[in-house]
Amino acid sequence: MRLALFAFIGSLVLPAFANTNATLDGYTPQSSDAERALETKFRAMPSPEKQREYMKLLSARPHHVGSPYDKQNAEWLLARFKEWGFDAKIENFDVLFPTPNGNRVEMIEPKHFVAKLSEPPLAVDPTSSQRDEQLPAYNAYSIDGDVTGPLVYVNYGMPDDYKELERYGVSVKGAIVIARYGAGWRGIKPKVAAEHGALGCIIYSDPHDDGYAHGDVFPRGPFRPPEGIQRGSVMDTDYPGDPLTPGVAALPGAKRLSVAEAPTITKIPVLPMSYGDAEPLLAELRGRVVPPNWRGSLGITYRFGPGPAKVHLRVKSNWDQKRLYDVIAKIPGSELPDQWVIRGNHHDAWVNGAEDPISGLVAELEEARALGELLKQGWKPKRTIIYAAWDGEEPGLLGSTEWVEAHADELRQHAVAYLNSDSNARGYFGADGSHVLQKLINDVARDVPDPEKKMSVLDRARLREVDEAKTTESREEALKRGDLRIGALGDGSDYTAFINHIGIPAADLGFGGEASGGIYHSIYDDFYWYTHFGDPDFAYEKAESQVIGSTVLRLADAEVIPFDFVGFSEMMKKYASNVQELLENDQAEFRERNKELEEGVFDAVSDPTKPLNPPPAVKVPPHFNFAPLQNALDALSDSAEKLSKAWNKAESNGWSLPAASIARVNELLMQSGPALLDQAGLPHRPWFKNMIYAPGAYTGYEAKPLPGVLEALDRHDWAEAESQIPREADALMRETRIINQITAVLNAEPRPSSSR
Amino acid sequence: MRLALFAFIGSLVLPAFANTNATLDGYTPQSSDAERALETKFRAMPSPEKQREYMKLLSARPHHVGSPYDKQNAEWLLARFKEWGFDAKIENFDVLFPTPNGNRVEMIEPKHFVAKLSEPPLAVDPTSSQRDEQLPAYNAYSIDGDVTGPLVYVNYGMPDDYKELERYGVSVKGAIVIARYGAGWRGIKPKVAAEHGALGCIIYSDPHDDGYAHGDVFPRGPFRPPEGIQRGSVMDTDYPGDPLTPGVAALPGAKRLSVAEAPTITKIPVLPMSYGDAEPLLAELRGRVVPPNWRGSLGITYRFGPGPAKVHLRVKSNWDQKRLYDVIAKIPGSELPDQWVIRGNHHDAWVNGAEDPISGLVAELEEARALGELLKQGWKPKRTIIYAAWDGEEPGLLGSTEWVEAHADELRQHAVAYLNSDSNARGYFGADGSHVLQKLINDVARDVPDPEKKMSVLDRARLREVDEAKTTESREEALKRGDLRIGALGDGSDYTAFINHIGIPAADLGFGGEASGGIYHSIYDDFYWYTHFGDPDFAYEKAESQVIGSTVLRLADAEVIPFDFVGFSEMMKKYASNVQELLENDQAEFRERNKELEEGVFDAVSDPTKPLNPPPAVKVPPHFNFAPLQNALDALSDSAEKLSKAWNKAESNGWSLPAASIARVNELLMQSGPALLDQAGLPHRPWFKNMIYAPGAYTGYEAKPLPGVLEALDRHDWAEAESQIPREADALMRETRIINQITAVLNAEPRPSSSR
Repeated sequence: MRLALFAFIGSLVLPAFANTNATLDGYTPQSSDAERALETKFRAMPSPEKQREYMKLLSARPHHVGSPYDKQNAEWLLARFKEWGFDAKIENFDVLFPTPNGNRVEMIEPKHFVAKLSEPPLAVDPTSSQRDEQLPAYNAYSIDGDVTGPLVYVNYGMPDDYKELERYGVSVKGAIVIARYGAGWRGIKPKVAAEHGALGCIIYSDPHDDGYAHGDVFPRGPFRPPEGIQRGSVMDTDYPGDPLTPGVAALPGAKRLSVAEAPTITKIPVLPMSYGDAEPLLAELRGRVVPPNWRGSLGITYRFGPGPAKVHLRVKSNWDQKRLYDVIAKIPGSELPDQWVIRGNHHDAWVNGAEDPISGLVAELEEARALGELLKQGWKPKRTIIYAAWDGEEPGLLGSTEWVEAHADELRQHAVAYLNSDSNARGYFGADGSHVLQKLINDVARDVPDPEKKMSVLDRARLREVDEAKTTESREEALKRGDLRIGALGDGSDYTAFINHIGIPAADLGFGGEASGGIYHSIYDDFYWYTHFGDPDFAYEKAESQVIGSTVLRLADAEVIPFDFVGFSEMMKKYASNVQELLENDQAEFRERNKELEEGVFDAVSDPTKPLNPPPAVKVPPHFNFAPLQNALDALSDSAEKLSKAWNKAESNGWSLPAASIARVNELLMQSGPALLDQAGLPHRPWFKNMIYAPGAYTGYEAKPLPGVLEALDRHDWAEAESQIPREADALMRETRIINQITAVLNAEPRPSSSR
Repeated sequence: MRLALFAFIGSLVLPAFANTNATLDGYTPQSSDAERALETKFRAMPSPEKQREYMKLLSARPHHVGSPYDKQNAEWLLARFKEWGFDAKIENFDVLFPTPNGNRVEMIEPKHFVAKLSEPPLAVDPTSSQRDEQLPAYNAYSIDGDVTGPLVYVNYGMPDDYKELERYGVSVKGAIVIARYGAGWRGIKPKVAAEHGALGCIIYSDPHDDGYAHGDVFPRGPFRPPEGIQRGSVMDTDYPGDPLTPGVAALPGAKRLSVAEAPTITKIPVLPMSYGDAEPLLAELRGRVVPPNWRGSLGITYRFGPGPAKVHLRVKSNWDQKRLYDVIAKIPGSELPDQWVIRGNHHDAWVNGAEDPISGLVAELEEARALGELLKQGWKPKRTIIYAAWDGEEPGLLGSTEWVEAHADELRQHAVAYLNSDSNARGYFGADGSHVLQKLINDVARDVPDPEKKMSVLDRARLREVDEAKTTESREEALKRGDLRIGALGDGSDYTAFINHIGIPAADLGFGGEASGGIYHSIYDDFYWYTHFGDPDFAYEKAESQVIGSTVLRLADAEVIPFDFVGFSEMMKKYASNVQELLENDQAEFRERNKELEEGVFDAVSDPTKPLNPPPAVKVPPHFNFAPLQNALDALSDSAEKLSKAWNKAESNGWSLPAASIARVNELLMQSGPALLDQAGLPHRPWFKNMIYAPGAYTGYEAKPLPGVLEALDRHDWAEAESQIPREADALMRETRIINQITAVLNAEPRPSSSR
């Protein structure tokens, strides 16, 4: 589901080099050496040739939820995990999964035109011709509908675009909107359109965003051809997973909503479209010309409408239940079997899905095969390792969400961390995740060589941050830093249920940035595309196995789980100051705008022949009481510093504490993720229980750290925003208390003698 | 010549309202009341209907230099000025003016395609069919040439674009470059191309810049149709005027260079082109894909080349001398006939030129007719007023430059100020000019009502500055200010010789911003276009007459020439701090870049399949001795403040000084402009003698205040940059001494009694 070119959020800290002498975090000097040797052995094992074979096989036929090949892949995966020595099984869930059955878009005025809504096979690309097994292009969980209305172009169809429409005096009421893909998650587009009274929604891929503006189109180049269509889910963001079983697993006997009751199904019908189909529609729009940043790359004048293009849109689906096949494979822990390190990637695709998700899955498979090799050589992990291949990620994180909901109690008790991957391709290492994992991820990435450059994948990512810094100041700062700050997790892949619903620390890892293209969620995301444009040598597939597999090993074998609260505390301070800054900016901007309204600025600059409505006057937000959050942050950073000192002492003493103390420390560390939850959940989204990390309700992919305050600020609900400050402060105070307990355990022990 | 939508540079100062009780600057309370009454009478006179008639007549046929209608218009203008009571005559100059004779562009590989290079007549537009009299689209003063080579796309073809080309490893050596119009003066494009080894240069109008991206194309809308071509001069920037007679008037007997010796003729052949002709060429470029900001709005992938498109370019001209017809009309001053207030606009066009220049000329004509009316009613100006209608502006400011060179000695002695206009259309008031005129321009603009809004043209311009301010901070500052800061003059119309060669304070005034279009320098800039899209009611034509005519009157009738040195001094400080900031930015940026080169940032982010060369290491500029300039600025502002006090006292005492003192003050004020000159001129451009004001040698239109330092900084010639500081300081010290002398004259007088 995740876009191949996810944004890399983060910046840098202190010159990075592999300090091969330092003791690994959470290890003794002895176990650290052993671990380094083990990881070195491990990193030599992943084979690009095998990854290529797996990809060829797994992407050989369309394998969406409910398809024969989806099941066949799951069974093949099960067999591999078993072959490699895992204790593996398939877990099934039965979920609502609509499939298209009579979709249609036609322009009925001023010309007649019927959209093709289909992608032609290409002679050079063998899998593109598997028409019988391909799911037609559609947006899953669009409501059925048959609507006719004038067309209105709404740019990316995000909330800010509607503010612009208001200034131009363009209403979408009773209209069908056409939005281009991009600038936010696709499900936001029909949601916001419906809120503004639109009857229906078309989403198309403008060549500006992933088509010929960027280079040659497929198959000559990697970019979206005129008939390429981006499929994808438009399920609303209240909760992921089966729309009929919110909060509980979609197992036999589960209480199920009716389709009509399911709140995550869209309010208006929505269909995706190619730019080949969209151009004739857009060319028949009149009305005002759009502002420059609304223009796409078609050779036309982009206009708002409404009309004269009048469009008939019909969306009709089979609303069947389909069976999911989650493959779950375990290596039991030899010493701490009740502490689970979980690693996953989905296996379902919209069509053949070589990049999304097979590129991530084959990296996972080579990790698993290598772990199997190590098992054969006598290694046993201290903790239990679980490798998962999820089904149903594309329609709405179905497989991972239902599995987490099915096993929530066990996971809260046993899960150490969840490591995710998804699409992977040539380029730069990037990571988003829980900030307790930030240091671990940096430490591992420092040990993995970049396949194209004589440096570690960490250094390359760091230097890219320098290159992309916007100001001389930030570039200088970035040059001085030695590690990569990871971004918070938003939405878009299978980590969501883990971190947002049950609070398990999670991270999403991968490479990208040198293999941009325009085949995302189309029939052309296939073996031909990937082996020509994605990662032809599978070099970054191997690097992906190396990074994530090493992270799994390091977590699984550590004496003490290597979470770092200093980095966590720093990032929390940063996020809190971002929130305060946002409020201050809103205050300044709205005060300023109201003054401009009084002075008549907007009237003065409105051309009478092309008038612009003034923006609405806005109540300036009040000052908030941030003290609870500030106090919590101070306590958190004090505690994190103290723990860091105690930790370093314990580590330099070889973790020579009584076994019960070590056990207690690990236990407390495992409580630190769930401590961020509040069972009442976020306002309007009770399924999302993490007070610190959440995706945006109106951005989708984008992370909204400290979401309670941030989201209410976005909605201009000042009272709600302020009311969330104490809840976030409480979450951080719970974390702080756990940190203090860990410190107390570490400090309670008498110092061991230096002769030890 | 000037682009219709010239950039408005400036910002605001203190709430603006017409203080109708205050004494006008340079007037006594009595003469101030009389002047207000006169101006009120004057501002009722300009007639939109007459302006429309003039435009219809003057743009009825093509009237470029050397055409029959150019001469006919001059004679008609002469007759009008005479009819209105001016002492008018035509002054002739004989100048080099090449006209096309066998231009051709064809693609010879990989396909054959011959560019049309011609604009079709349109049925609705009567003058578009005057094929016999239209000058074909070409770039005047391109050297003759017949070259063949691979094509390279160079974006706007400005110096920074070549830095980008180097990073992509693309050379233009031996190639023909194709640049799009925009981002700087067109003459820079072949100049920089030649410096990089190109054989020839094509300049085309991308629809991104003034075509369908913005709206409907002509005749349905105002924007450039597929076959519309922008003609224009590409004469180099060493000096304007006749290329064969630098520094002297092109009169019989003048020493003339041969064409081969003329340094302002281009080094390589250059031709303009429509996007209809350019698209087939651009579509046949391969090589790397250009960066996003290089993309235009054609429905193609923009690539650098070189080739495979191979182009044959032939430019061939008749290198004839043509006669210029400058119309010079005078109203002799009744009291101070030796002090001349000069006002001008050109009358030649590239084709029919309704907007450029007739829209400015008809405003001037209605001012002249109104002055004639006032003369009939018994008014006589204190000072001499000269109205000029220049010929040959389009090819290179020929008529105004030759006239200034012919009359340089008289002008240095007699000219008070030069007020210019050029294209004019619906929208916002804007002014660039010498900053001693800033307050006067503000005062006049405060008295002229905007035709579309219930406010003065000044207030509307001010509020637009607020709207366009980029940050909340700058918006707040702009809201607090009450007047408009004017920009410095760059290049692009007939003020150049006045301000840059002989130091006469000058300003360029006009309206624009609500009538954007794409007919600039094409056959479609005609009466049909202007009356549909430019200013259909001629309301802003009337406003233009009101603003500029009032400024002429106020300068002509003042007791003391109303120059303001406080505003001048403020702007000089601003420009000086801009220069220092630029140096500091260069220092920080180059230091930073060198560090990044050492750290390997550019290697780390270079995709091996699409490598980017690192930018070159640069010597970090040293710190400069800015003290002479800083000392001069301090002295200047002290002196300006003292003069302001003395001036206000004198004014509040009704300028009751002896006649000789008033005469001396006026004389000194008239020396203040030429005091900024240094007869050695700017480095590499000795014709440009003003040390404070100049257009950029590599930007053309754009102003480069404090040009000696600024231009050398642009060229990274640090030694030359520093060497220019004392020359600029000296110019400001000469100005300061004049200011001090004026103050001394004003303060020398005993205070008149209050009973006076």
